[in-house]
Amino acid sequence: MKALVYHGPGDKRWEEVPDPALVDATDAIVRVDTTTICGTDLHILKGDVPAVTDGRILGHEAVGTIESVGDAVTTVRPGDRVLVSCISACGRCRFCREARYGQCIGGGGWILGHLIDGTQAERVRVPFADTSTYRVPEGVSDEQVLVLSDILPTGYEVGIVNGQVQPGDVVAVVGAGPIGLASIMAARLYSPSSIVAVDLADSRLTAAEQFGATATVNNGDRDPKEVIGDLTGGLGADVAIEAVGVPETFELCTELIRPGGRVANIGVHGAPATLHLEDLWIRTVTVTTGLVDTYSTPTLLRLVASGQLDAAQFATHHFALDELMDAYDVFGRAGETGALKVVLSGAGR
Amino acid sequence: MKALVYHGPGDKRWEEVPDPALVDATDAIVRVDTTTICGTDLHILKGDVPAVTDGRILGHEAVGTIESVGDAVTTVRPGDRVLVSCISACGRCRFCREARYGQCIGGGGWILGHLIDGTQAERVRVPFADTSTYRVPEGVSDEQVLVLSDILPTGYEVGIVNGQVQPGDVVAVVGAGPIGLASIMAARLYSPSSIVAVDLADSRLTAAEQFGATATVNNGDRDPKEVIGDLTGGLGADVAIEAVGVPETFELCTELIRPGGRVANIGVHGAPATLHLEDLWIRTVTVTTGLVDTYSTPTLLRLVASGQLDAAQFATHHFALDELMDAYDVFGRAGETGALKVVLSGAGR
Repeated sequence: MKALVYHGPGDKRWEEVPDPALVDATDAIVRVDTTTICGTDLHILKGDVPAVTDGRILGHEAVGTIESVGDAVTTVRPGDRVLVSCISACGRCRFCREARYGQCIGGGGWILGHLIDGTQAERVRVPFADTSTYRVPEGVSDEQVLVLSDILPTGYEVGIVNGQVQPGDVVAVVGAGPIGLASIMAARLYSPSSIVAVDLADSRLTAAEQFGATATVNNGDRDPKEVIGDLTGGLGADVAIEAVGVPETFELCTELIRPGGRVANIGVHGAPATLHLEDLWIRTVTVTTGLVDTYSTPTLLRLVASGQLDAAQFATHHFALDELMDAYDVFGRAGETGALKVVLSGAGR
Repeated sequence: MKALVYHGPGDKRWEEVPDPALVDATDAIVRVDTTTICGTDLHILKGDVPAVTDGRILGHEAVGTIESVGDAVTTVRPGDRVLVSCISACGRCRFCREARYGQCIGGGGWILGHLIDGTQAERVRVPFADTSTYRVPEGVSDEQVLVLSDILPTGYEVGIVNGQVQPGDVVAVVGAGPIGLASIMAARLYSPSSIVAVDLADSRLTAAEQFGATATVNNGDRDPKEVIGDLTGGLGADVAIEAVGVPETFELCTELIRPGGRVANIGVHGAPATLHLEDLWIRTVTVTTGLVDTYSTPTLLRLVASGQLDAAQFATHHFALDELMDAYDVFGRAGETGALKVVLSGAGR
């Protein structure tokens, strides 16, 4: 089959590789009907994720069709149309039993396109298929559920649930890339009074408005603390969501919140940040971090099926699966191209 | 009357001052029967809390007897024996209505011995008496409830509740001073499987054992990560409670917890700490800070009255109120004297 293979920093190739085969009794082989590229894939290609080694097929997001299953698989059958989650879950370890699938210590966690071959391919082996795939409801398109592989549950769980967004809250979302937009979309489920998107790029702020931000701030032009202060009588935001992954934006989030407020970090960080405990110790704040667990995936699937979430809104560019190299180019230049999610359709579509 | 007056860094005097008088209709004048000294008072005397100005009577902890009340006070009467809380609460502002009394923006919060005259005196004016004092149950001694003014609700709310201690948890308490000991006492209410006290002083670790620590680590001799690792199969503690207030102990707490674990900061910090987001972003951790709100004070009073909490255990040294200067000396040299809480008894006792 063909797949997008990582050959070290800066070197990716769309090339012929062996078809995947069932290894464990809990595996499924899934034909990839639709896949996409994540910001994390770009990090990998920069060499930021050294656990990814030469020869690895990238990708951890897909909608596909089950082709075969191991003997132990009981809830999905060949022919079923499934969402492949970025998180594989053994379903048996301490963390899985607490629905902390992202921290699975039984062989799962984020492994696809990381520690094992991923979804940017014609087929993929999915371990623990019973607990790592989700049947797609009828009448829902691949494009509508594709972002449920990763960014929508990430924004929902790591941003909105961890940040404890409540009705009437003032929510600051720092960073209006796909993860920030997913947080904005998910925040609306809890009826905040304001969602203030903060970014340095006006094009991203325009997208933020389309996703439901009620105010936008280009923090190159204006201090977001002023805008939030005006909205809150000087108190600060109830919740600030960090969706960038650099120390400056994390520290900004800790400055934006009110006493009793929450900072929910989603960003993938490569460096430490300064935590100003000399100010924060007395302010009764909560800071959370997290890898997505995907416990919300069934809920989000229902919300998509019922029309409460328009998750297809992320799909800005469309390609055939064998145009993956072109898709990387468009996604890698998102600042120019305005790409949010690029949708790659396999031969089965 | 006589009172302990702050006259700038390093200068405190037991001297004659005017008696307090009712100012607002919500005030009470309380005769101080029993008071104590807090580590925060030592910080003030070092000049670390510049909001405390020359002439201020120190102290924010007391048990006393109501002498007079303003016209608006309805729930306490002259002659009532009350606990005076370190937190005054207007009861009307947004934060008070959310039980976040420590963040009161209606004139309360931590004001006694800080922004207004405090409890290290023969009498004290207590604002918002209805919502800032608590009647002491019959049959309970002053000494048994004195630590409910501050350290016990602080350990309980900011340490154990914020840290979400659960039955079976492994809890690390870093710092075994009075606040750390209060956290250990409060942690036991939730039946953790292990409470590991970490401190540099063996005398404090001995006290920690008396308060219920199941293991102790002198981190001058041994790496607490090893001890916690042995207890948890290498995973880390469920909760780490920071009860010191320096960057090193905060950072240690973030290293001690497991994926999905919580750091509850209680320490009063004067400098920023480093938050290693490059490790923590993926570990699904929660970090909380907090000033005590005292929402738990009625609960803790019931637990003392029922004998479930032996809060008198903190009282190591006893003085008459007019020996406050001597008591400061003993408390200030706690490392030598082993003082946890010094109890000062007024003429009414």
